[in-house]
Amino acid sequence: MVDATVIPTLEQRIAGLTAPSARSNVPPFMVMDVMAAAERIEANGGQVIHMEVGQPAAPAPRAAIAAAHTALEQARIDYTSALGISSLRQRIARHYRETYACEIDPARIVITTGSSAGFILAFLAMFEPGDRVAVTVPGYPPYRHILTALGCEPVLIETTAENRHALTGEALLAAHRKTPLKGVLVASPANPTGTMMSREALGGVIAAARDAGIRFMSDEIYHGLDYAFPAVTAAQLSDQALIINSFSKYFCMTGWRIGWMVVPDALVRPIERLQQNLAISVPTLSQIAAEAAFDGHAEMEAIKHGYQENRRILIEGFPRAGLTRFLPADGAFYLYADVSDFTKDSFDFAKRMLEETHVAATPGVDFDPIHGRSFVRFSYARSAEDMQEAVARIARWLG
Amino acid sequence: MVDATVIPTLEQRIAGLTAPSARSNVPPFMVMDVMAAAERIEANGGQVIHMEVGQPAAPAPRAAIAAAHTALEQARIDYTSALGISSLRQRIARHYRETYACEIDPARIVITTGSSAGFILAFLAMFEPGDRVAVTVPGYPPYRHILTALGCEPVLIETTAENRHALTGEALLAAHRKTPLKGVLVASPANPTGTMMSREALGGVIAAARDAGIRFMSDEIYHGLDYAFPAVTAAQLSDQALIINSFSKYFCMTGWRIGWMVVPDALVRPIERLQQNLAISVPTLSQIAAEAAFDGHAEMEAIKHGYQENRRILIEGFPRAGLTRFLPADGAFYLYADVSDFTKDSFDFAKRMLEETHVAATPGVDFDPIHGRSFVRFSYARSAEDMQEAVARIARWLG
Repeated sequence: MVDATVIPTLEQRIAGLTAPSARSNVPPFMVMDVMAAAERIEANGGQVIHMEVGQPAAPAPRAAIAAAHTALEQARIDYTSALGISSLRQRIARHYRETYACEIDPARIVITTGSSAGFILAFLAMFEPGDRVAVTVPGYPPYRHILTALGCEPVLIETTAENRHALTGEALLAAHRKTPLKGVLVASPANPTGTMMSREALGGVIAAARDAGIRFMSDEIYHGLDYAFPAVTAAQLSDQALIINSFSKYFCMTGWRIGWMVVPDALVRPIERLQQNLAISVPTLSQIAAEAAFDGHAEMEAIKHGYQENRRILIEGFPRAGLTRFLPADGAFYLYADVSDFTKDSFDFAKRMLEETHVAATPGVDFDPIHGRSFVRFSYARSAEDMQEAVARIARWLG
Repeated sequence: MVDATVIPTLEQRIAGLTAPSARSNVPPFMVMDVMAAAERIEANGGQVIHMEVGQPAAPAPRAAIAAAHTALEQARIDYTSALGISSLRQRIARHYRETYACEIDPARIVITTGSSAGFILAFLAMFEPGDRVAVTVPGYPPYRHILTALGCEPVLIETTAENRHALTGEALLAAHRKTPLKGVLVASPANPTGTMMSREALGGVIAAARDAGIRFMSDEIYHGLDYAFPAVTAAQLSDQALIINSFSKYFCMTGWRIGWMVVPDALVRPIERLQQNLAISVPTLSQIAAEAAFDGHAEMEAIKHGYQENRRILIEGFPRAGLTRFLPADGAFYLYADVSDFTKDSFDFAKRMLEETHVAATPGVDFDPIHGRSFVRFSYARSAEDMQEAVARIARWLG
């Protein structure tokens, strides 16, 4: 007993031994509550249209599934080297050459267990505890929560309509003057808004960050799903940018948990050591399937055209249904609608919409602690019929 | 620019922008260097006997591979709930009932991306930055390095021959008096020693930790591979213990990256929130295959008997070859030999042994920063023929 003068009761001692840490006190996803409510409605025979989940309805490319079958028969599903299977890293470098006309040394490509593990490795390798890292709001909630769990302080920068809800160099520097930043993370196409940054916008933020000594990270998980204009990778603009990507969205491989990073030279070895210790290696079967996924390009383009049609249905249909205000849905498969004409609380709005129309969507509070109560995120990764039916149900409901 | 009075050069600015964090400065695995050297010898036609790698030579159970094939055809490989597929959690609870006669609520079972992710979740949920956590040396290197990367301070406790190189309550309390501890992590069977803790030894550490307010964690990844006596799970002794396990060793599923934890009630929800944010979910195909792996028990028992024969060959053969001193090889598939009669530097010893006899083993410095230079770890997870040949080569070399 360290301090014998104060003897706790057995109950206190047990509670103390299993009490969670302060840093584990990160918020859950509200979307989980929506999914649970949708399941209850379906269990009672309701026909729910699922626009709450950020995952494709389609499976992985046929070539990826075939490669997994073959590997199960012929390959060893052993640990791989920590940075990933060499041929997959080379295939990703070829992807940058073919898609962006951008030469990247495969040595700078790191395979990760989904983009999730990429964030952990990036934040640990780039930042010390206490470092402030800017993220935009609305934005993907785990950015903030992973930073917090790893001892960093997320600094929220609000985007505005004038810049199509994309971060600018000026906004970054303004935040930096208020509270000095060590890093910034942007996403284009973004979740939950679907907005994209032009080459000029992305280049402006990269230059401002470089000049101010702020490390730059680009989440490019929705690349490939660009409708307004072709997405620009930060790798084309800077070899000091750290890029995080994944096979989950364009390649429809969410449950495979497989992604990659492009990292600056100086971070390859630190990230390799971190991955050796924190993960040993990335799921082998997923790595093999991911390499083959690139052969499914035509198949994935057909799926993308489906999203494009869904997007058209919503952009044309929502205003007629009463949802007249939403952010630019340039890419990804999300439409972020302002519902403040109807409610002060988008959580309540989403709950009632689900109960009364059986259309499931996600309240903005997950993505934006500041203005989230005014917004609802609609995912359009399912069928065109679902989209048409959703528009019709919402029109009846709001009408 | 934050401080306009000091203008760095472009080179300094670039280097500053990509310099790794202090907390990413964790050591690599020495074993990687051994593996690379072994590969070079094999590329030149040499016949290397691989005793350096801690992974089974056999593949996953046939039932697991069959389940993966079926899932690829019939199931959706989507995100799962963060705590894991419900039927897998129930199957693991049944495993505790059948193997240890121990009732565990499936709600306390958390599926993880290998034991590696289990350590990250456990350390984040249980400890604050700066907390001191005791681990034994020799021990699995990532214990120390993950703790360090997450801001905790590993406190090394040396084990002694008197206690068969297992931690005791007395040793834990002695360390606690010197520098107050918040947690302790033990492994039985242990890596790299193969030593096991009896029920009394494990119970003694659990009781001492509880009385001193130290959180207790048990790494049970080598359970099932017990030769000296049946392994005891901490779950039988305390429902406040946090247990980490994996399908990698007994079930030969290293590259699948799939494991589990049994956690105290109070930590279920914090760990669920952390996993939602840090990983979303665990690889789906691996979860499905893992559930089926339990049907491969007979197949895995045959493999275990192979290890048992390998162990006999080494325990009988090594003393005749000149390696007379090693720690109790009770379980796992490791023998940790004291080579200080031959060298002051086990790294050099392992290097020469590989070059001159083509037997690859791991120097102890990976596992023990204090006495590691006196030890070499031999893994016996390959064939009996390999073991016999290794004994013969080492006998000729040392003779």
